[in-house]
Amino acid sequence: MSTAQVVRRVAVFGGTHGNEMSGVYLVKRWLQNQEAITRPSFLTVPCIANPRAVERCRRYIDVNLNRQFTPGTFQYCMDVPSTAPYEVHRAVELNKKFGAAGEAFDVIIDLHNTTSNMGNCLIIGSSTDSFTLQMVRYLVQRSGLVCPVFLTENPASHVKMADTRSMGVHGIENGHYGPSCLRSVSRHGLCLELGAQPQGVLLADIFLRHERLVHTCLDFIHKFNQGELFPKETLEVYRILHVVDYPRNKDNDLSAMIHPELQDKDWHPLQPGDPMFLTLDGETIKYEGDSTIYPAFINEAAYYEKGIAFWATQKETLNVNELQVKN
Amino acid sequence: MSTAQVVRRVAVFGGTHGNEMSGVYLVKRWLQNQEAITRPSFLTVPCIANPRAVERCRRYIDVNLNRQFTPGTFQYCMDVPSTAPYEVHRAVELNKKFGAAGEAFDVIIDLHNTTSNMGNCLIIGSSTDSFTLQMVRYLVQRSGLVCPVFLTENPASHVKMADTRSMGVHGIENGHYGPSCLRSVSRHGLCLELGAQPQGVLLADIFLRHERLVHTCLDFIHKFNQGELFPKETLEVYRILHVVDYPRNKDNDLSAMIHPELQDKDWHPLQPGDPMFLTLDGETIKYEGDSTIYPAFINEAAYYEKGIAFWATQKETLNVNELQVKN
Repeated sequence: MSTAQVVRRVAVFGGTHGNEMSGVYLVKRWLQNQEAITRPSFLTVPCIANPRAVERCRRYIDVNLNRQFTPGTFQYCMDVPSTAPYEVHRAVELNKKFGAAGEAFDVIIDLHNTTSNMGNCLIIGSSTDSFTLQMVRYLVQRSGLVCPVFLTENPASHVKMADTRSMGVHGIENGHYGPSCLRSVSRHGLCLELGAQPQGVLLADIFLRHERLVHTCLDFIHKFNQGELFPKETLEVYRILHVVDYPRNKDNDLSAMIHPELQDKDWHPLQPGDPMFLTLDGETIKYEGDSTIYPAFINEAAYYEKGIAFWATQKETLNVNELQVKN
Repeated sequence: MSTAQVVRRVAVFGGTHGNEMSGVYLVKRWLQNQEAITRPSFLTVPCIANPRAVERCRRYIDVNLNRQFTPGTFQYCMDVPSTAPYEVHRAVELNKKFGAAGEAFDVIIDLHNTTSNMGNCLIIGSSTDSFTLQMVRYLVQRSGLVCPVFLTENPASHVKMADTRSMGVHGIENGHYGPSCLRSVSRHGLCLELGAQPQGVLLADIFLRHERLVHTCLDFIHKFNQGELFPKETLEVYRILHVVDYPRNKDNDLSAMIHPELQDKDWHPLQPGDPMFLTLDGETIKYEGDSTIYPAFINEAAYYEKGIAFWATQKETLNVNELQVKN
């Protein structure tokens, strides 16, 4: 049995990336009508995370806001140099308001979109946070939507990577995912990463699914606060292994594209020998790893500059502890 | 019978908008291997139209390059003020090289992508240019691809618009489409506008279709130069009527989205009473015009800032004259 503290404050962020439109428009609407996301047992606060990027409909102004929530940023604490990137200023502001030193929000729900065909992806950073795992399990079982779960926790050290390194595969850099994200500012955090949606486009279908997932999260939290016992469960997740980059030429330009047979196949098994890339000259490059992987974030627009054609993941079943609010 | 002059020079442009990726990558490849687009009877020159925008993977740096090919721009001719937008400088450069005062290219093929589900759209500006119409007819019949034709020529004056004006419908401003486009620099011009593809994403399937369409154009031009007679034909086109904007609030933000039943239905008939928008609060707004229209460019990312939710078009059948090269 795990317990967790009662939830007093929940923040719902949109526009962490300014051109991911369903989160932007949902949060703008909730800022006009906070009633819609109110539940009796806790406070819900909607917030546009990167307002300048939203205004310009760009992912960010200077740097990716969602990698600025680091000790390096927070060393500034009260006094950010005026020359620091806009998003460093903004990360410090958000940490001051929502973080432990401020109003200490208990839960952050961060709304994102991807150009990849990820469906209703739930992103979590820990396999041991029972509260978040139970919330995710609740979404999987009760939202009425198919919700693949992407776990950004570092993989077990036994995973072999050397055999694929020559193909543009590289490991996870420290802070690449997880602890530097906006959702890490509170005790519990979750990204709702919905796609496929082009940057700068609002798709009604995705807007409605994003809305439904947020409401289902809030329903879970209210039940939790009311003392409901959430039984022991299992949860299927896709745990990150490593990223695979596009084949590139000497100018760092793509020399191949995601193969048509892999495009839009996020969460599907990729077996050794399956087509992975198609060169600009029409040659197929096959996946030559020695085990099945489950690609995610295939052909995400924002990842070209990061050197990511897709994330390789492995499928795992986590045990989720029984959970009840701490008295 | 129409005749046209033999074609000596053809330019193929990519990156007129720097984040429309299949044109960018095709042209980059052809710059490395011009042989691939060579035909015996004419010169083909590939060109990245907006290199700075391509470098930053943005639509443009200062202003939309594809609206700068105007008499207003070319008044500068030899002496563009240094304070002019980058794209004005670039338009003057391109006009000097490819236009009538320079090397006088005969045909421009301009490669674009859209986030709308436009398929293999061919955009033309005139219902009377027999050469371009015959080239388009050839693509429709011989490329093996379904190619809807979008005609940007001003609609006939009898079209009624007053009844829809209150719903965010507005007319075609002078120069909004057509004469200010890059393709207008040469005697004959065509845009290949393929979608749906998110900005900043390269989809192999679209890359391959773009490539095939360019090769089919070049095959047509070579046959034309060799004296082939192209018989009288008809051609189905979608002629622009007016644009329809999103419903907006007092801050000019969207208050409604494209209705899920209209999303991706480019080229399908929209009948009076059909769902058109869905407000952020879930209310359906129906199309209340008095005649059937054929929407195109539905939910194109780049058109949010222009106030365009989609273009209303009407279906027409054009007569295409018999064509042969002028001796």
